[in-house]
Amino acid sequence: MARVLTPRAEDFPRWYQDLIAKAKLADNGPVRGTMVIRPAGYAIWERMQAEMDARIKAAGAENAYFPLFIPESYLKREAEHVEGFSPELAVVTHGGGKQLAEPVVVRPTSETVIGEFMAKWIDSYRDLPLLLNQWANVVRWELRPRIFLRTSEFLWQEGHTAHATREDARAYARRILHEAYEDLMVNVLGIPVVVGLKTARERFAGATATYTCEGMMGDGKALQLGTSHELGQNFAKAFDISYSSAEGGREHAWTTSWGTSTRMLGGLIMAHGDDNGLRVPPKLAPVQAYVMIVKDGEGVGEAATKLCDALRDAGVRVALDDRTDTAFGRRAVDAELRGYPVRVELGPRDLAAGNAVVVRRTDGSKAPVPVADVVGAVLAALEADQQALHDQALAFRQSRTVEVGTLAEAIEAAATGWAKVPWSEVGVQGEAEANGQGVTVRCLLRADGSVPDSEDEPDLVAILARAY
Amino acid sequence: MARVLTPRAEDFPRWYQDLIAKAKLADNGPVRGTMVIRPAGYAIWERMQAEMDARIKAAGAENAYFPLFIPESYLKREAEHVEGFSPELAVVTHGGGKQLAEPVVVRPTSETVIGEFMAKWIDSYRDLPLLLNQWANVVRWELRPRIFLRTSEFLWQEGHTAHATREDARAYARRILHEAYEDLMVNVLGIPVVVGLKTARERFAGATATYTCEGMMGDGKALQLGTSHELGQNFAKAFDISYSSAEGGREHAWTTSWGTSTRMLGGLIMAHGDDNGLRVPPKLAPVQAYVMIVKDGEGVGEAATKLCDALRDAGVRVALDDRTDTAFGRRAVDAELRGYPVRVELGPRDLAAGNAVVVRRTDGSKAPVPVADVVGAVLAALEADQQALHDQALAFRQSRTVEVGTLAEAIEAAATGWAKVPWSEVGVQGEAEANGQGVTVRCLLRADGSVPDSEDEPDLVAILARAY
Repeated sequence: MARVLTPRAEDFPRWYQDLIAKAKLADNGPVRGTMVIRPAGYAIWERMQAEMDARIKAAGAENAYFPLFIPESYLKREAEHVEGFSPELAVVTHGGGKQLAEPVVVRPTSETVIGEFMAKWIDSYRDLPLLLNQWANVVRWELRPRIFLRTSEFLWQEGHTAHATREDARAYARRILHEAYEDLMVNVLGIPVVVGLKTARERFAGATATYTCEGMMGDGKALQLGTSHELGQNFAKAFDISYSSAEGGREHAWTTSWGTSTRMLGGLIMAHGDDNGLRVPPKLAPVQAYVMIVKDGEGVGEAATKLCDALRDAGVRVALDDRTDTAFGRRAVDAELRGYPVRVELGPRDLAAGNAVVVRRTDGSKAPVPVADVVGAVLAALEADQQALHDQALAFRQSRTVEVGTLAEAIEAAATGWAKVPWSEVGVQGEAEANGQGVTVRCLLRADGSVPDSEDEPDLVAILARAY
Repeated sequence: MARVLTPRAEDFPRWYQDLIAKAKLADNGPVRGTMVIRPAGYAIWERMQAEMDARIKAAGAENAYFPLFIPESYLKREAEHVEGFSPELAVVTHGGGKQLAEPVVVRPTSETVIGEFMAKWIDSYRDLPLLLNQWANVVRWELRPRIFLRTSEFLWQEGHTAHATREDARAYARRILHEAYEDLMVNVLGIPVVVGLKTARERFAGATATYTCEGMMGDGKALQLGTSHELGQNFAKAFDISYSSAEGGREHAWTTSWGTSTRMLGGLIMAHGDDNGLRVPPKLAPVQAYVMIVKDGEGVGEAATKLCDALRDAGVRVALDDRTDTAFGRRAVDAELRGYPVRVELGPRDLAAGNAVVVRRTDGSKAPVPVADVVGAVLAALEADQQALHDQALAFRQSRTVEVGTLAEAIEAAATGWAKVPWSEVGVQGEAEANGQGVTVRCLLRADGSVPDSEDEPDLVAILARAY
């Protein structure tokens, strides 16, 4: 097969851009840093949304929608929040042909405007917990945009909840972290994320604790794929989100927020892509089986249609490629690029022998299969390859992760992968030193791999890496 | 039952606002003209989206996503388009702390930016038709905002397609009009819309033909619920969307666009709501059966849980209200407000007699039903009431529509409903005169009720009405 992409080993960022362009996943938008998500990319995003939405609803949150435009004054009410987001704001100064009395910002995130409404809607402890989520676009002006990873506008879900106690808020922030985010990433996206606590330096602006899911990309760098925050009473105090308790007093609520975005598309590409293109895990794939007519011939079209129906009846998401006026080789290259988990190729010659050819994207294997057995073969391949992609990514992460004893060794190891080092060897000063060399503390873990409550716990392990 | 809303007959606009507030469907946002869609309202929107999305996909269009920000220069390329939208634009002048070299507008609609990309993606006739749709927020600065009906930001789907010929474009604009829009509105929303052609004066800015679905609201006014446009070659020429034909020449494409929005929520409220609140057609309702525990008692909770499971197994969307610490009367009023199609009330006394009480929102009927028969009774009610709501709305529309012979009579009739009048009696000048008195031509129809190709066809009928 001819080389269609810059090989990953030669130039990983170039490979990433090539793949996005050639698989028609996205384009750069006309305003710097914005993107156009093309149908092939958007279909994957829709599947991510559906899977995430189901998990968020299972955790009891309800969807709502809050305005894109936020009064500038709202941002200023929480000191750390405004400091964190001010440099990235897009500001609307004119509306309906007139200069606005107060400029409005395009939401970079919605803690402030949602805080304002939580304050209106919450009266008593009976109104808690209040569990909200929204699917929306947000804008953060990017100086060094990279498609899907850092774009001036991106799509995401942002959850916002209010609770009566700190313990409830913490439990919910962690429930979303594990039951929605980690579960989706590991079991649907096939990315074996490490889940941990961010350091104070890496915390969300206005949070008291930020939890994160970190994935290793194909070049050994880290990508933050989703975060969940305890906001303490910071926003509750800034927006007066309070409730009358069962005992009759008035208390400030404890809030959380949590988000995942179209950045997951970038993570998917970089975690599973190879030199031939994307590889989409079967559970996520909008098209799981791509049935291709190799060449027209007696009964081929009919056999393909029957096969598609049989696969659909078995619950498989199917597409038929009958564009025999385009060269088969070109279509096959395109199918590889797009990462359909299984291809089923039907041509007159194979069919005469009663066979179709089943091609698995994960390992590139090709095998003739009797037509009557194709459905079973496809189902088996989909199940096996969901696991195989995960396991490959896990093995890769393990091979590129080293345990070291000092900060200097950790920074060195971060040149090619992740370093695990005692947090006590790093600390706030070591973290700043690492940052100066392009290495960040991705998260902190307990020795047993579980998620700590605070960076002050003893015996924590820090993961250091370069990151997107 | 105590009066909770201003009666419709007393003050219809006030009733509308009351209902939205008390059923917790939405709130006004902090920036003038924006809105917050609360969970009860958003859940209905999600069902509308799912039903619409399925129809759009069935018509072959694929979802994509284009940027929120559009260079100001793009808008200016199509003369009528910029003239139509300029007064409503929100303009971003600052991004990332700096003044922008070129201001960007927040999309009021996306013909221009999508046109730019269609031009890049379309090369040959093989690339046509190109059928795209996006779910997005758009901004049109509103001087007289009204929640759901005219808001400065709203949510919608906007379809954009490119075709090789005018005939193909027209056929597709009409396919969406009938198969997606009319079908959804009539068969899911239960609103018997009239489908027709807009006059030149009411056409979308930049279109050569605009088709519309018009519904009658509970006060006899009209609401435009969805439009589909033929854009001719206007945008194709402005953005150079062209293709090489099978014969080898280079031709401009023919484009369409079409949209429906959160305005449908306003239409739903005003078409079916009554003095007790919303009435949601069963096919659309996020909660179809609302199972209420009237009072705690021996076996009541268990019976309610079993009943919910049985309803769910029968494919019914169910919610359980076991908040027995809140007065039953208050919860019942709330259930009426929210418009759940069927309530099933379970209390110790009824249950002792083996019964539950089934209450239908559509006609307010209440009947004891043996517990074993509840599932069947609910299914029958859901089916009957979907039709009943539609038929009530149709009967109302017919009772408020008169056929008249002159413009003066039509304007008079529009005080209380719709007037059908020969278009030849109105014409461009009569239309301006009607507009001066707050009456608009909603659409033009052929004598047989079908949709004309042009306002120049003979014997057309105009529908005149006041409108939202």
